[in-house]
Amino acid sequence: MLYLIGLGLGDAKDITVKGLEVVRRCSRVYLEAYTSVLTVGKEVLEEFYGRKLILADREEVEQEADNILKDADISDVAFLVVGDPFGATTHSDLILRATKLGISYRVIHNASIMNAVGCCGLQLYKFGETVSIVFWTDTWRPESFFDKVKKNRQNGLHTLCLLDIKVKEQSLENLIKGRKIYEPPRYMSVNQAAQQLLEIVQNQRTRGEEPAVTEETLCVGLARVGAEDQKIAAGTLQQMCTVDLGGPLHSLVITGGSVHPLEMEMLSLFSIPEASSESRSIDGL
Amino acid sequence: MLYLIGLGLGDAKDITVKGLEVVRRCSRVYLEAYTSVLTVGKEVLEEFYGRKLILADREEVEQEADNILKDADISDVAFLVVGDPFGATTHSDLILRATKLGISYRVIHNASIMNAVGCCGLQLYKFGETVSIVFWTDTWRPESFFDKVKKNRQNGLHTLCLLDIKVKEQSLENLIKGRKIYEPPRYMSVNQAAQQLLEIVQNQRTRGEEPAVTEETLCVGLARVGAEDQKIAAGTLQQMCTVDLGGPLHSLVITGGSVHPLEMEMLSLFSIPEASSESRSIDGL
Repeated sequence: MLYLIGLGLGDAKDITVKGLEVVRRCSRVYLEAYTSVLTVGKEVLEEFYGRKLILADREEVEQEADNILKDADISDVAFLVVGDPFGATTHSDLILRATKLGISYRVIHNASIMNAVGCCGLQLYKFGETVSIVFWTDTWRPESFFDKVKKNRQNGLHTLCLLDIKVKEQSLENLIKGRKIYEPPRYMSVNQAAQQLLEIVQNQRTRGEEPAVTEETLCVGLARVGAEDQKIAAGTLQQMCTVDLGGPLHSLVITGGSVHPLEMEMLSLFSIPEASSESRSIDGL
Repeated sequence: MLYLIGLGLGDAKDITVKGLEVVRRCSRVYLEAYTSVLTVGKEVLEEFYGRKLILADREEVEQEADNILKDADISDVAFLVVGDPFGATTHSDLILRATKLGISYRVIHNASIMNAVGCCGLQLYKFGETVSIVFWTDTWRPESFFDKVKKNRQNGLHTLCLLDIKVKEQSLENLIKGRKIYEPPRYMSVNQAAQQLLEIVQNQRTRGEEPAVTEETLCVGLARVGAEDQKIAAGTLQQMCTVDLGGPLHSLVITGGSVHPLEMEMLSLFSIPEASSESRSIDGL
């Protein structure tokens, strides 16, 4: 049996009781290490689970899935995913491959940012399509996701923006030279995401378009959701450029045009104090 | 401290290790019993947690929240919610009330249908606004949610339909006479939801409108997600009227117009066998 087990969002103890029981009895336990991270490292997980974990990077899951699935028809193999196993496409892929090999699978769900984002007080059912914001480079500065934000706002829906994670990336030089030397991991902060968004807003204005989002749009920055030291900040997009939320992972929500009074009341628990902002006016807060 | 603790979706062991530790040390433990249910009852939870649970129905949470929060400033109180604590509005309310009383709170997240629905293979980020389908009565047959389905489909987004739960409802007669006699709980099935949807489709045709959904629209029915005996069925809306998914809770997904090949491949794992259907053609399956 292949078990896909969500680890939740915070630390080692966010695994479910059921998940932990399975981990402790599986013959091999893989830890998916490229779509998200917990606030604790592999060693802490190993100690708490009482099991050795095999790190599975993107390359391995995509190209060497057969290694992961080896003997899973006659023994139990666990594949651990931060959050819930159905956050990232590649895990569907693993299931399909298992099924083709006649290997049964089971999923043990957990919280992911897709539902835990509700902790900021915005209603989950009022979220539209989720977007991803990637690190821009000198030559690649995609803006197309902004159309989805626009559509969501036109329909009064909030947008969850998942922020880029670069783990085990190679520099162009090392890639070309085939050297398996990897850059240190990078996690996009709410500040960086907001700055890229404001640049898109400026670009749209330059082109004479009316941007769907402005400096004053109400946003919510979230950091380390589910962890002891989680931070949430509600304020304008402009404020998101400078608010200090600490270490990764970060997520950003761009609110829909209409925010329900109850949502607004919850957001006010997290509003950025005037002193730390440039005392801009926030719609409604 | 007030702890809001998600129980996940299946049975007693779907609580997180962290959640279980908190439950075991709190002075009072409430179980929210009206927005969702697990596949096991209160007694099973009590035995596994080793704690007495106080059932909190809607009335109590909305009207007697102060009882729940009593002494939570000097001791620890847990409020357990099936799924994740941020599925239903009323729990924001409890947090706001706690905050006004100077009581700190913490959330221990878990899976909810809002993210676990990904187990059917449809990508979570391709879901639009979530809708609720309520039991129709002779005099109240709301269709307005259908506009949201339409908008989602126009944008190529899937729609998660949460199906109605009637717990501790009074008959009109008992309500008028002030008798606290309650009807047996009712949980809407995928069959019932699909039948109501098809009636709306017919009504729209009668009015000369072009319905956004037809008998042939690809849908996914899900039952008891996260439980050992979970069932998923992919097929046409027509097939959803008769497919047998067993006991509650059920959810229904209406796919967006465009389904990615990888999504389609996952859905095919759950396609309804020809024999049990009326051999209708399903777009793409």
